[in-house]
Amino acid sequence: MLGTREPGIYGARTLDDIHAELSGLAEELGLSLEFFQSNHEGALIDRIHQAWRDGVAGLILNPGGLTHTSVSLRDALSAVAIPTVEVHLSNIHARETFRQHSYIAPVALGQICGFGPIGYELALRALSVKLKQ
Amino acid sequence: MLGTREPGIYGARTLDDIHAELSGLAEELGLSLEFFQSNHEGALIDRIHQAWRDGVAGLILNPGGLTHTSVSLRDALSAVAIPTVEVHLSNIHARETFRQHSYIAPVALGQICGFGPIGYELALRALSVKLKQ
Amino acid sequence: MLGTREPGIYGARTLDDIHAELSGLAEELGLSLEFFQSNHEGALIDRIHQAWRDGVAGLILNPGGLTHTSVSLRDALSAVAIPTVEVHLSNIHARETFRQHSYIAPVALGQICGFGPIGYELALRALSVKLKQ
Amino acid sequence: MLGTREPGIYGARTLDDIHAELSGLAEELGLSLEFFQSNHEGALIDRIHQAWRDGVAGLILNPGGLTHTSVSLRDALSAVAIPTVEVHLSNIHARETFRQHSYIAPVALGQICGFGPIGYELALRALSVKLKQ
Amino acid sequence: MLGTREPGIYGARTLDDIHAELSGLAEELGLSLEFFQSNHEGALIDRIHQAWRDGVAGLILNPGGLTHTSVSLRDALSAVAIPTVEVHLSNIHARETFRQHSYIAPVALGQICGFGPIGYELALRALSVKLKQ
Amino acid sequence: MLGTREPGIYGARTLDDIHAELSGLAEELGLSLEFFQSNHEGALIDRIHQAWRDGVAGLILNPGGLTHTSVSLRDALSAVAIPTVEVHLSNIHARETFRQHSYIAPVALGQICGFGPIGYELALRALSVKLKQ
Amino acid sequence: MLGTREPGIYGARTLDDIHAELSGLAEELGLSLEFFQSNHEGALIDRIHQAWRDGVAGLILNPGGLTHTSVSLRDALSAVAIPTVEVHLSNIHARETFRQHSYIAPVALGQICGFGPIGYELALRALSVKLKQ
Amino acid sequence: MLGTREPGIYGARTLDDIHAELSGLAEELGLSLEFFQSNHEGALIDRIHQAWRDGVAGLILNPGGLTHTSVSLRDALSAVAIPTVEVHLSNIHARETFRQHSYIAPVALGQICGFGPIGYELALRALSVKLKQ
Amino acid sequence: MLGTREPGIYGARTLDDIHAELSGLAEELGLSLEFFQSNHEGALIDRIHQAWRDGVAGLILNPGGLTHTSVSLRDALSAVAIPTVEVHLSNIHARETFRQHSYIAPVALGQICGFGPIGYELALRALSVKLKQ
Amino acid sequence: MLGTREPGIYGARTLDDIHAELSGLAEELGLSLEFFQSNHEGALIDRIHQAWRDGVAGLILNPGGLTHTSVSLRDALSAVAIPTVEVHLSNIHARETFRQHSYIAPVALGQICGFGPIGYELALRALSVKLKQ
Amino acid sequence: MLGTREPGIYGARTLDDIHAELSGLAEELGLSLEFFQSNHEGALIDRIHQAWRDGVAGLILNPGGLTHTSVSLRDALSAVAIPTVEVHLSNIHARETFRQHSYIAPVALGQICGFGPIGYELALRALSVKLKQ
Amino acid sequence: MLGTREPGIYGARTLDDIHAELSGLAEELGLSLEFFQSNHEGALIDRIHQAWRDGVAGLILNPGGLTHTSVSLRDALSAVAIPTVEVHLSNIHARETFRQHSYIAPVALGQICGFGPIGYELALRALSVKLKQ
Repeated sequence: MLGTREPGIYGARTLDDIHAELSGLAEELGLSLEFFQSNHEGALIDRIHQAWRDGVAGLILNPGGLTHTSVSLRDALSAVAIPTVEVHLSNIHARETFRQHSYIAPVALGQICGFGPIGYELALRALSVKLKQ
Repeated sequence: MLGTREPGIYGARTLDDIHAELSGLAEELGLSLEFFQSNHEGALIDRIHQAWRDGVAGLILNPGGLTHTSVSLRDALSAVAIPTVEVHLSNIHARETFRQHSYIAPVALGQICGFGPIGYELALRALSVKLKQ
Repeated sequence: MLGTREPGIYGARTLDDIHAELSGLAEELGLSLEFFQSNHEGALIDRIHQAWRDGVAGLILNPGGLTHTSVSLRDALSAVAIPTVEVHLSNIHARETFRQHSYIAPVALGQICGFGPIGYELALRALSVKLKQ
Repeated sequence: MLGTREPGIYGARTLDDIHAELSGLAEELGLSLEFFQSNHEGALIDRIHQAWRDGVAGLILNPGGLTHTSVSLRDALSAVAIPTVEVHLSNIHARETFRQHSYIAPVALGQICGFGPIGYELALRALSVKLKQ
Repeated sequence: MLGTREPGIYGARTLDDIHAELSGLAEELGLSLEFFQSNHEGALIDRIHQAWRDGVAGLILNPGGLTHTSVSLRDALSAVAIPTVEVHLSNIHARETFRQHSYIAPVALGQICGFGPIGYELALRALSVKLKQ
Repeated sequence: MLGTREPGIYGARTLDDIHAELSGLAEELGLSLEFFQSNHEGALIDRIHQAWRDGVAGLILNPGGLTHTSVSLRDALSAVAIPTVEVHLSNIHARETFRQHSYIAPVALGQICGFGPIGYELALRALSVKLKQ
Repeated sequence: MLGTREPGIYGARTLDDIHAELSGLAEELGLSLEFFQSNHEGALIDRIHQAWRDGVAGLILNPGGLTHTSVSLRDALSAVAIPTVEVHLSNIHARETFRQHSYIAPVALGQICGFGPIGYELALRALSVKLKQ
Repeated sequence: MLGTREPGIYGARTLDDIHAELSGLAEELGLSLEFFQSNHEGALIDRIHQAWRDGVAGLILNPGGLTHTSVSLRDALSAVAIPTVEVHLSNIHARETFRQHSYIAPVALGQICGFGPIGYELALRALSVKLKQ
Repeated sequence: MLGTREPGIYGARTLDDIHAELSGLAEELGLSLEFFQSNHEGALIDRIHQAWRDGVAGLILNPGGLTHTSVSLRDALSAVAIPTVEVHLSNIHARETFRQHSYIAPVALGQICGFGPIGYELALRALSVKLKQ
Repeated sequence: MLGTREPGIYGARTLDDIHAELSGLAEELGLSLEFFQSNHEGALIDRIHQAWRDGVAGLILNPGGLTHTSVSLRDALSAVAIPTVEVHLSNIHARETFRQHSYIAPVALGQICGFGPIGYELALRALSVKLKQ
Repeated sequence: MLGTREPGIYGARTLDDIHAELSGLAEELGLSLEFFQSNHEGALIDRIHQAWRDGVAGLILNPGGLTHTSVSLRDALSAVAIPTVEVHLSNIHARETFRQHSYIAPVALGQICGFGPIGYELALRALSVKLKQ
Repeated sequence: MLGTREPGIYGARTLDDIHAELSGLAEELGLSLEFFQSNHEGALIDRIHQAWRDGVAGLILNPGGLTHTSVSLRDALSAVAIPTVEVHLSNIHARETFRQHSYIAPVALGQICGFGPIGYELALRALSVKLKQ
C-alpha cells in the first residue's frame, strides 16, 4: 500500500504516471501495490488500521504536513507495527526549522527525502529488501 | 566518489563486499566509483576539495558523528557545490535528539537513513537519476 | 457521552465488554451513556457540538494523540463548556516529553491516566459526583 | 470564497446575518462570494484545492485552532497560491502564547484579528483593493 | 489621532496623500483625525499621555520597530486605556521570528498587518464601529 | 498507606471525614489503610522506606508542591518499587506551567488530578484493581 | 513573626543584635515581633501554618535558597494568605541566573533585596504601612 | 536625585505630595533631593551623565518599562558608578514573565518592589544608610 | 558621518583627539567626515534619515546598548540602505550573553569589535576600500 | 565527615561494610572519619554548619536527588567553605537530562560518579592528597 | 592505554613524571599501561579502533574540548565497547555552561573531574577494580 | 603568524596575492609574518602550540566553521595566551543563527568580519597597534 498525500492539483496525469511506474517496479520486485491519497488525517489512520486487518506487509508513507504535527498518525503506525518507509519529495531538513522534526520517523524503518517522485521508487526498493530479510 | 566514515572495525571483508556490490551497480548505471574513508574531518574536507579539482560529478557522503557537529564539512560541500547525497546507516531521526539535526542536509540534494548498507545503493540510484536530469 | 479514540484494531469484543461494563456502572449511578469513536478530529468536534445541542450533561474524553496537538478540539470543548473528564489509558507523564503537555487539560475538570480501561470507570464515578454537586 | 470555521453553535441566525451583510458588501465591491465551514482540516484542504480548480481569485480564511497547528493547511494554501487574508475574531496576540504563532500567516497577504465579525468585512475590503492592484 | 512611525524618507507627497484620504474617510464616518509621527519612543509616549488629557476617543498606532521592543510604550497605552488599533504595513508574521511577538497587541483592540497603507483605512473603519458599540 | 500532604489548616474535622470515608471504602475493597501527613520531604521519604520494610502493598501519594521539585522523593519511590498512585486535588495541568511537570509521575502507576478529595477514593479503587491483577 | 534562614554560623552575637534592633523598631511602629530560623523547609511550612492559627498579621520572610526551588513554601504562603514581605540580603538579580526567579514573589506583597540586614528594617516599615492601610 | 518615570497622568497633585514627603524625609536624613521625570530613555541617560558631572552621591531610579529592555540605561549607570537603588511600584516578579528580568539590577545596589510610593521612602532610607557606611 | 554613542563622561579632550585623528585619516583617504553623538535612539534615527537626504556615502556606527535592543535603529539603516560599518569598543562577543546578539549586524557591511578607539580607524579604512569597489 | 544519603533500605550490613572499609583506608591515610546519613535537607545543612564549628577539614558528600534541586545545600557548602568532594554511585551524566546539572559541583573541589561505593574510596584518596597540598 | 589530550606546552618534564607515577601504580595493580596524546580527533578515533583490535581491556580518556563537541569520538567509544573512565583535570561542572554537557559520559563507566593529574590515578584505581569484577 | 582556513579551491593565485600584500603591510609596520593553512583542527592546534614555543607575538586567525564548534581550538588559544585577532571574510552575524556564536571570541582581542580579504589587513593593523601598547 502506498499512502501519498500530494494534492490532486499536481494533475491526474502525472500522478497516474508515477503510479504506473511504481506498479511496474513493484511487479519486478514480486510485490503488489495499492495507492491511497487523502487530505484527512482520520482517513489515513482508518486506512492504516484497514491495512493491518488486510495483513499488508509494508507501507510507504508521505505524511506531508502531518509529519510535523500528527501524534495520532504516529500512534496508528506504532499500533499496527507494519514496516513503514517515510518519504518526502523535498529535502525537509533543508527547509524551515519546524519541518526538521518528524513525529513519524521514530516509528518508521527509515526516511528518504529530497529526491522528488524518485523517492517512492527508492522506498519500494528499500522495503522490498527489508521484507526479504 | 563515495565517502564512507564507518569504522574499520566492522571488518574489511564486509566493507569490501559493499564496495564490490556498489561498483557493480555503478557500472550498470554507467558511473565510475571511488571510495574514501577517514576518521579525520580535515581529511574528508581535503578529499572534497580534491573531488572538486578532479571534476567529480556527484558525492555520496555518510558523515557519521560529524553530521551533527561539523560546520567545516558543510562549508566545504557548500563551497564545491557538487551534488551530494547524505546517507546514514541508522534512522537518525529515531535516536537521541542531538542526532536529529544535520548540518549537512541543507547543502545536500537529499537524505537517506535507516536502511543500513542498502542506503548506499539507493543513494547511487538517486544520484544517477539526478545527474541525468 | 463517551468519546473514545482507541483504534478498532484492539478488537470489537474487548471494546464491547468495556462498553457493557461502563453502561452497567452508569445505570448504577443513575446516568445514561452514549459512545462515540472516531479517528477524525473534525468528527469529534462535530460530535461535541451535537452534544451541546442535545444538552449532554458531561463528557468523558480520551483524545489520544490529539491531546498534544489539537487546539481545535480544545476550543470546541471550551465553547460548549460541558464538564469534561480527560482519560488516558497509559501514564502519559511517564512517556515521551511531547506527551506531557495536554491542550485539553486546561479546559477539563480533571485528568486520569495510567490505569488502562479502568480509567473510564473512574472518570464516570468522578463525573457522577461532580454532576451532583 | 469565505472559509469560516466558527462552530455552528453560535446560532444559524447570527451566521446567516453575517453572510448576508458580507454578500451585500461583496456585491458593492463587484465581487461574488461563496461560504464554506467545516471542522475537518481535510475538508478545508479539499475546498482550497477545489477553489484552485475553480479559478477563485481570493480567499478569506479563519483557520481557528488550526492556525497554530496545521502545516497541512499552510502547505495547501502555499500550493494553490491564491491571495489569502487570515482573519481571527479574537485578538490572538493577546491570548495564550501558543496562539501567537500562526503557520498560516507566512503564506497569507496579511492578518486581521481582534474585531469580531467586522474582521470579515475588513478582509473583504482589503482583498478587493489587492485584487485590483 | 493617528500615530504613524514611518520614516519621512518615503516622501512628503505620499504621506500627505495618505493623510488626505484618511481624513476624507474619517469625515465620512463622522470622526475627526489628528496625525503624529516621531522616531522618539519618549515623544510617542508623551503624545499618548496628551491624548488622554485631550479625551481622545481612539488611537491607531503603527509602532514600527518598537512593537517588538518597547515595554514603555505598552505601559503607556495600558495606563491611558484608550481603544487602540495596531497597524503594520508589512505582514510581520511572515518575517523574522523577532517580529512575530508584539508587546503592543495585548493592550490593543486588535491588529491589522500586511496590507500596506490600506491598513490605516481598515483600522479607521474598525475603530469607528467599535466606538459606536 | 495514604500519604497526604494537605496542610492541617483545612481543619481537622474535614480531614477526619475524608479519612473515615476512605477507611470505609478500603474495608469494602478488602484493604487496610494507614494515613501519614507531613510538610517535611525527609519525613515522607523516611515513611516510604518504612512502608517498604513493612511490606506495604500500595501507596497513594499527594506530593503537593514537591511534585514539581523533589528528585529525592522520586528516587525513594523508585527504590522501593511499591505500586503508587499520584493524586492532586486541583487540575495541575490547568495551572502554572511549572505545575505541569511531575518528577513523581514517571515512577507512578498513574495520576489522578482535578477532582478534589474524590481523587483519593478514585485512587483507592484504581489501586485495588491493580493489586488484584 | 520574622522567619530568617541565615545560617547560625554568622555568629549568635550579630544575629542577636539584628533581632534587638528590629524589636526596637517594631515597638516604635506599634508592632510585636517573633523570630524563627530553620534550615528545614518543612519546619518553615509548619511555622507558617502555626502563624495562621495564631492570627499573625504579617510575615517577613528570607527564604534563602528555597526562594528558587520550593513550590511547597509558596503553596503554604498562598494557603494562609498572610501579607508577606520577601527579603534577601544580597541582590539576587545581580547573581547567577537561577537566583533571578523566585517562587515566593508571586504570593508576596513585594520584595526587597541587596541591602544586607537593613532589608529587614525596610520590610518592617513597609509591612507596618501596609497593615495600616 | 530621584529619577521617576511615572506618567504625569496620575495627577500633579499626588506626585507633588510624594515629592514633598520624600524631601521631608531626606532633610531628616541629612540629604538633599532632586527630582527628574522623563519618558525619553535618552533624557534619562543624559541626566545620569549630568549627575556624574555634579558629583551626585546616590540615585533612586524607577526605570519603568525600560527595566526590561534598556541596555543603554544599564551601561550609563555602569559607566558613572553612582550607588543606585532600583524601585518599582508594583511587584514585578508577580507579573508577566518578561517583567521578571531587569537589565538594571546587576548594576544596582539593590531592588525594592511591590510597595507603591512607599518604595521611594524605603529606597531613600536604604541609600542613606549605605552612603554612611 | 560618524555616529558615536560614547558618553560625554569620557572627557571632551579624548573625544576631540579621536575626532582629529579620524579626520586626518579621512583626508588621507580622500573622504570627508562628520560626527554625531546622542543618547537618544530617535535622534540617531533622525540623523540617519538626514544622512540619506544629504546623500551620505557611508556610515560608521557604534550603536552601544541599542545594538542588542533596537529594531527601530535596524529598520532605519535598512530603509536608507547606506553602507554601514558597525563598531564596538569592547569585544562584545566576550561579554554577557545578551551582548552577543546584534540587531544591527544583519543590515551592516561588517562588524569590528574589541580594539577600542582604533576600531573607528579600521572601520574608516574598510569603508574607504568598500566605497571604491 | 562523610555525608551519605543512600536509603537505609540497602541494608545495614552493606552500609556497615562500606563504612568499615572507608575507616580503614582513612586510618591508612592518616585521617579520621565520621559518617552522617539523612533524608532531610535541613539535617544535612545543620550537619554541615556543625562540621564548620567542629573545624572539620574536608567533606565527602553524596547529595542524591538534592544534587539537582537544592540551592540551600549549595549555599550551606559555599558558606562554610570546607573542601568538598561530590560523589554519585551512578553515572549521573548517562541518565535523565535533569540529572546532568548539579547545583553542588560549582562549590565542590571535584566530582566522582559512576563507580558505585568505590567512589567514596576514590574521594577519600583525592581529599587526602588535596588536604596535604 | 591512557589517552591524554593535554597540550605539550605544559612541559615534557611534568608529563613524564605523571606517566612514570601512573606506570608505577599500574604495575602495583597488575596492569600494563600505554600512553597516547593527540590534538587530532581523527587520531584519537583511530587509536581507539586500534585498541579494540589489540584487545585492550580498559581506557582512561581525557577528551579535553572534544568532550563537549565530538559525537564521532562518542560513537567510536560506543562501537568498541571497551570500559572507559572519563577524566578532566578541572571541575568542568563549575565552569562555563557549555562545559557541563559531555557527549562522552553516556558511553563511559564514570567520570572524575576537578582533581588535576590525581584524577588519572583515581581513574586507574577505579578501572582496576571494575576490570576485576 | 597568520592562520587562514580558506579552502585552496579559491585558487593559489589569489591567495598568493593576499599573502604578498599582507607581507608588504607587515614589513611597513615592522612585523614579520608567517602563513599557515589547514583543514585539520588538530593541525591548527599543533601550530598554535608551536607558535607558543617559537615566542610568536600575535596571531590572526580565521577559524572558519570551527569558530562555532571547536572548544579545543579555544582551549589551545586560551592556554598559549598569545594576543589573537579573529577574522571572518563574511559578516557571520548576518547569516544563519548558528554562525552568530563564536567559541573563539571570548579568548580573542577582538573580531573583524564582513570585509572579505581586507579583514586580514585590518587585523594586522589592529594587532600592530595592540602589540606596541
